[in-house]
Amino acid sequence: MSSTAGQVIKCKAAVAWEAGKPLVIEEVEVAPPEAGEVRLKILYTSLCHTDVYFWEAKGQTPLFPRIFGHEAGGIVESVGEGVTHLKPGDHALPVFTGECGECAHCKSEESNMCDLLRINTDRGVMIHDSQTRFSIKGQPIYHFVGTSTFSEYTVVHAGCVAKVNPAAPLDKICVLSCGICTGLGATVNVAKPKPGSSVAIFGLGAVGLAAAEGARISGASRIIGVDLVSSRFEEAKKFGVNEFVNPKDHDKPVQQVIAEMTNGGVDRAVECTGSIQAMVSAFECVHDGWGVAVLVGVPNKDDAFKTHPVNFLNERTLKGTFYGNYKPRTDLPSVVEKYMNGELELEKFITHTVPFSEINKAFDYMLKGESIRCIIRMGE
Amino acid sequence: MSSTAGQVIKCKAAVAWEAGKPLVIEEVEVAPPEAGEVRLKILYTSLCHTDVYFWEAKGQTPLFPRIFGHEAGGIVESVGEGVTHLKPGDHALPVFTGECGECAHCKSEESNMCDLLRINTDRGVMIHDSQTRFSIKGQPIYHFVGTSTFSEYTVVHAGCVAKVNPAAPLDKICVLSCGICTGLGATVNVAKPKPGSSVAIFGLGAVGLAAAEGARISGASRIIGVDLVSSRFEEAKKFGVNEFVNPKDHDKPVQQVIAEMTNGGVDRAVECTGSIQAMVSAFECVHDGWGVAVLVGVPNKDDAFKTHPVNFLNERTLKGTFYGNYKPRTDLPSVVEKYMNGELELEKFITHTVPFSEINKAFDYMLKGESIRCIIRMGE
Repeated sequence: MSSTAGQVIKCKAAVAWEAGKPLVIEEVEVAPPEAGEVRLKILYTSLCHTDVYFWEAKGQTPLFPRIFGHEAGGIVESVGEGVTHLKPGDHALPVFTGECGECAHCKSEESNMCDLLRINTDRGVMIHDSQTRFSIKGQPIYHFVGTSTFSEYTVVHAGCVAKVNPAAPLDKICVLSCGICTGLGATVNVAKPKPGSSVAIFGLGAVGLAAAEGARISGASRIIGVDLVSSRFEEAKKFGVNEFVNPKDHDKPVQQVIAEMTNGGVDRAVECTGSIQAMVSAFECVHDGWGVAVLVGVPNKDDAFKTHPVNFLNERTLKGTFYGNYKPRTDLPSVVEKYMNGELELEKFITHTVPFSEINKAFDYMLKGESIRCIIRMGE
Repeated sequence: MSSTAGQVIKCKAAVAWEAGKPLVIEEVEVAPPEAGEVRLKILYTSLCHTDVYFWEAKGQTPLFPRIFGHEAGGIVESVGEGVTHLKPGDHALPVFTGECGECAHCKSEESNMCDLLRINTDRGVMIHDSQTRFSIKGQPIYHFVGTSTFSEYTVVHAGCVAKVNPAAPLDKICVLSCGICTGLGATVNVAKPKPGSSVAIFGLGAVGLAAAEGARISGASRIIGVDLVSSRFEEAKKFGVNEFVNPKDHDKPVQQVIAEMTNGGVDRAVECTGSIQAMVSAFECVHDGWGVAVLVGVPNKDDAFKTHPVNFLNERTLKGTFYGNYKPRTDLPSVVEKYMNGELELEKFITHTVPFSEINKAFDYMLKGESIRCIIRMGE
């Protein structure tokens, strides 16, 4: 046990006091983990759109002050009662969704939507006692998706922590906690393109590029990027995208453009924008008889997916996925190994790095659309 | 070669002269098969809703005079030039969709939607020369979906003829040409329920009962029938249906009723009505994380399938199927073997039989909702 086990730890955290206002580095008190929890020392974290979305808090019930952050790599500092799969010193990735191991979803081979630990963006407290583990001079500071990795130390439910190969560099594999696995898994676990097949990727942000990387790894021969910003094609080439369609360049619907390019449609499509129009296009651009479209992007509350049912009857399949269908504890170690053996390339996702003291720059890079992933070095 | 090979055959056929008017048994002339065609002696045929639908010709471009019929069993009388997989004397099932063996769909393991021989309900002639093979005193009589089995002899594209075990009774296996395989395959080939799982079947007509039979064969433990006619439950029990929901008996949507019965949703649902409302219910009643819904029923032209995309993102799958994903020539022989070894029970689908001279009675039984399948004995 480390000397800090069981003690409150004082450390630095980037606190969001108000929606849309720059984070402030504060000294926070981090309580020890309760039963079934783990306290992690975060070494590297990265910024994801979801952090920005809830930080902006547009159209949501705001929950502040809050510590954001959910893509990270760290080391277990101490564990709470009953935690057996992790011990101090283990290298670990916290994940915004978990694996209790007991519910019907965890017991199903097909699902990763754990009943207990499924993402809950409205909850700012720990499940165990509905309290926060963060405070500043007695004032509770809310958690975010059970991870709150913009802190040198954080407390996480043990079911949301994947133990990984200690030889793997945490400043690279930290990006696997969310966006990259979401896109990668959508392709390799759900769409499952065959070698030599064609895949359309809607949206060339981080998730879409990870979906393209999945298509590249799967041996797809045609990887068609679809984006409203044509300049994204150049960067996307590194991820295997070898053809590009900007829907704005065409008078006809993009699904028709793609069908004409591919003799009736692509074998697989992965939708990573959340636009309802892109979802319909992604489904309707797959080939009849065998085409599979996978939805990844999160839509607006009031959106309705609408298509003619004959598009299904002509033997098309539409599926959705959450976190690329990866079970965090069970599956992340093998994704890390894919990186270690060179199959999966993570470096190209990392366009920027900043010291923790400059974390607000990471927000700027993302808001300007300049970064794919910006790594935040916690010690600095 | 039989003595009739290469000759015009005069025989009896039930001709539909006008939409919705009783068929008339006429003497027709059946020309010999051209290249790539087969002439079959039909021994047994059965009546399917699709025959009735196109005979009624409501809202369609009517095509008369026409010989309907597309579920049948017969014996090859002669073959046209270039036909190598069939010879006179072979026992065979004609099918309304085919397998050319050469197109992308035939070469795909996943699709049965042959480019050349996919169903075409508007075509009343043979593909080879755009002519009919039927005539009465020189007047051409149109074909129906390439089969026209309400005739003692018919000419069919060889790609639409499955050669089957000659020991199999044609008066039973003739029902495999359409409805029964459509429902059965939707479950066993597409929905693929696991042993012990729960399956909801929407619509307990012939296709739905065949889908239930597929669930029974697959070892599903809960088979929930959904139908607006409660009296259908009793008959459906023979096909493995062991629970029943009539949407009319509930104030809430049937998907909610089913979710409450099954702790969150069924593992699989198969939609066999064609009602757009049933399609949405079938999709929304499957469990998140792993549920799969399969659409079989044919919708109206202007219907739109509409659901919130989050229903997909929560890891539900929606697929459609055509003829149960069976490739007629490749797969039908093994379905016949399933009947021969007792796994698949066909007798319970056959509620009536009539001699050919009384074929209009088969229409009456179906229109009154009394029959599942009525077998028509051609010789009588």
